[in-house]
Amino acid sequence: MAAYDYDLFVIGGGSGGVRAARVTAGLGKRVGVAEEYRFGGTCVIRGCVPKKLFVYASQYPEHFEDAVGYGWSVGETSFNWPTLIANKDREIARLEAIYKGGIDRAGGDTFQSRATLVDAHTVRIEAENRTVTAEHILIATGGRPNPHAALPGHEHCILSDDAFHLAELPKSIVIAGGGYIAVEFANIFHGLGVETTLVYRGKEILGRFDHDLRHMLHETMEGKGIRILCQTVFEKIEKRDDGKLVAHLNEGEPIVADQVMLALGRMPNTENLGLESAGVELGKMGEIVVDDYSRTTVPNIYAVGDVTNRVQLTPVAIHEAMCFVDTVFKGKPTRPDLESVATAVFSQPEIGTVGLSEEDAAKEYDEIEIYRAVFRPMRNILPGRQEKMLTKLVVDAKSRVVLGAHILGPDAGEMAQLLGIVIKGRLTKDVVDATMAVHPTAAEELVTMYQPTYRLKGGERVG
Amino acid sequence: MAAYDYDLFVIGGGSGGVRAARVTAGLGKRVGVAEEYRFGGTCVIRGCVPKKLFVYASQYPEHFEDAVGYGWSVGETSFNWPTLIANKDREIARLEAIYKGGIDRAGGDTFQSRATLVDAHTVRIEAENRTVTAEHILIATGGRPNPHAALPGHEHCILSDDAFHLAELPKSIVIAGGGYIAVEFANIFHGLGVETTLVYRGKEILGRFDHDLRHMLHETMEGKGIRILCQTVFEKIEKRDDGKLVAHLNEGEPIVADQVMLALGRMPNTENLGLESAGVELGKMGEIVVDDYSRTTVPNIYAVGDVTNRVQLTPVAIHEAMCFVDTVFKGKPTRPDLESVATAVFSQPEIGTVGLSEEDAAKEYDEIEIYRAVFRPMRNILPGRQEKMLTKLVVDAKSRVVLGAHILGPDAGEMAQLLGIVIKGRLTKDVVDATMAVHPTAAEELVTMYQPTYRLKGGERVG
Repeated sequence: MAAYDYDLFVIGGGSGGVRAARVTAGLGKRVGVAEEYRFGGTCVIRGCVPKKLFVYASQYPEHFEDAVGYGWSVGETSFNWPTLIANKDREIARLEAIYKGGIDRAGGDTFQSRATLVDAHTVRIEAENRTVTAEHILIATGGRPNPHAALPGHEHCILSDDAFHLAELPKSIVIAGGGYIAVEFANIFHGLGVETTLVYRGKEILGRFDHDLRHMLHETMEGKGIRILCQTVFEKIEKRDDGKLVAHLNEGEPIVADQVMLALGRMPNTENLGLESAGVELGKMGEIVVDDYSRTTVPNIYAVGDVTNRVQLTPVAIHEAMCFVDTVFKGKPTRPDLESVATAVFSQPEIGTVGLSEEDAAKEYDEIEIYRAVFRPMRNILPGRQEKMLTKLVVDAKSRVVLGAHILGPDAGEMAQLLGIVIKGRLTKDVVDATMAVHPTAAEELVTMYQPTYRLKGGERVG
Repeated sequence: MAAYDYDLFVIGGGSGGVRAARVTAGLGKRVGVAEEYRFGGTCVIRGCVPKKLFVYASQYPEHFEDAVGYGWSVGETSFNWPTLIANKDREIARLEAIYKGGIDRAGGDTFQSRATLVDAHTVRIEAENRTVTAEHILIATGGRPNPHAALPGHEHCILSDDAFHLAELPKSIVIAGGGYIAVEFANIFHGLGVETTLVYRGKEILGRFDHDLRHMLHETMEGKGIRILCQTVFEKIEKRDDGKLVAHLNEGEPIVADQVMLALGRMPNTENLGLESAGVELGKMGEIVVDDYSRTTVPNIYAVGDVTNRVQLTPVAIHEAMCFVDTVFKGKPTRPDLESVATAVFSQPEIGTVGLSEEDAAKEYDEIEIYRAVFRPMRNILPGRQEKMLTKLVVDAKSRVVLGAHILGPDAGEMAQLLGIVIKGRLTKDVVDATMAVHPTAAEELVTMYQPTYRLKGGERVG
């Protein structure tokens, strides 16, 4: 008789947990997974997927406008928010079933229940009021939006989770935050016709990104009609008798809106999981502390994904899960490789970025070359749309290796994905130059920037 | 006094000629360029650029349909062909001015005239009825659609050149050909609501491409409602009294349509240029024979672009022009590098492809691995659009080098551009596998195909 009920028990059925469970079960191991809400996790249920569906929905007004330049007349258009929500929910339910079904088919047990640790090898399935034992335990409980409880009136505000289920589309919204979630939702709501204001405490939106991306996106969003207030914070949120909300700011006039959304970072889901009883150590932000192999301070307990607060991205959680399986169940200790992670912001226009920003490269390398093109994508020309696109490469002058690639414009996310391979392969600018253009595309700008726009030496611009 | 009027005289103001002229003039050389029609050449005036504008125009009916799945109601839409033509013409005129202006600003002389060779160093400017002399001459006169003069009734047909200026949009069209021009126009006309039939003599459209791309595009086009008849040829075209055309085929019922378009290849523009008097040798197709450095059989006369019938693509002509300038005016003999040229077909869905097809790789390499994914792009799901996307990598099993990348689906051309860098850099599948996904994108499928779908050894499928 086996010493434990399971070889692996996974707490949390999001991208990381499901992948680890499915692959491990596929190896013939006995696997259980508990999910208290819905299989699929943040990404599928209230993150990447529904967000991108909203992005698509919010782009249609520009399609309708642009059509005119191409000879089309478009009759009156109208938007029905409940239809979008219902169609989105149907798709999410389909994906949820695929996620859960994948574990079932691989032979794993799924539990629709909150699960907590009793000790290092024992898990309580709360809904069934019983415990199971496991040789290895993987915590993949993800994270959630920070509710900003210190803000007076925060209870009147919505979080990104709520934005996916609003009963009706507000006429106006104020969004607090300058990260990708705030920026994406500002574009979504604006695109759907909502009067939108973005309020951010920092100097410029999208902190970690290349400054060119940040400035050009900021400008372009303002050009579309989104109001952006940087270096501004909420002091309190009041609810008026007529149901409207008033956002009082640290300076300037209060803003009256139908909804106020807080997108002020995310926090790891580590409360009331019994982590203390098992001896799992937490970090300052409440995240689970792990080593290079995703192992917690308890040798048989691992953690992957947002709950570890490393890089909070779905593909990273999946990658960490795959490395965990290699390490623990395939006898192939594998460290997640989190270098040069390409990423996209589904703002409008989109951002796609991989590798070092100009600023970071200038710090790390003695001399760098910046190749930069700003142009109107062809599709914008007949419609008279003024929005410009940016392509930018950061190159180490000495080795000629491309250190970073940054794009603002249509399909930037698709481009960043493939530039990710180029940067992972440490290809040089010479290889980029030797690549024939594909005409007419936007991406061809990336292979036809033959002369540096400027250089930086010792962090200083030298021409 | 200089021995010649010009250091370089360029005949033909298309992509190759303009680039060579502009760059050479920028070096301080005395440069003249003659163009008999409009500066910009095939690409700008009646090729890539207006074609892609038409593609954008023709995609709107699907946008309008798809909007419904995202909660939009779209009133009645209608399309005005003359508006598209007028807007397109305005943009083409703008680009033409940029092309011509670039030479002017670089200090070159432009001639709005046909130019012919008198001898190896003398060019006649026909419109001015005078001659000029030049140390070097570059022929960049491009090509034109084959009118298929052997076809009875070919005079009733239009060519791609004409398609850009039809007085009205036909209600029905039959297009002969299976190359990218035929396929792109079939999709354009169909998208704009024209009843479209494609007639092609070969077994499958798009001869040189990977078979998966060819079959899936064929199926998808038929799914949209385009009729495709392969292994079929026109026997004659008749014009009826009511103005309709009747295309008689080698088998099956004749097809009645408003227009018949011939897209049966292109031929080099080498007639009546005085090439014989200068001693420039032509090949079997009438193309100018050049060596690896684009030099003709006359030492001071070079030729680039479609007139040489190498790879008929705008970026190739430009690349050949740049190599010509390096070779002749910068003292840096440079051979055009025409290996692994990425290319796109702006069909609907789009094709993006670079490197070896499965078939070619199977011939050249002992063992290859095929990684292949077929999926519905996320944007198609809420609209209920069934069209699928294909991503495919061809890998040398021994070296692990990625030999070919083939995509059918939205933005495939943008993706092929960047995969072109990957293939130029001879990166391995291991680097692709090590690249983190960007989620949710379509391109992430290209980095998450971890297991080969099948292998071929000695050209045979082995699992």
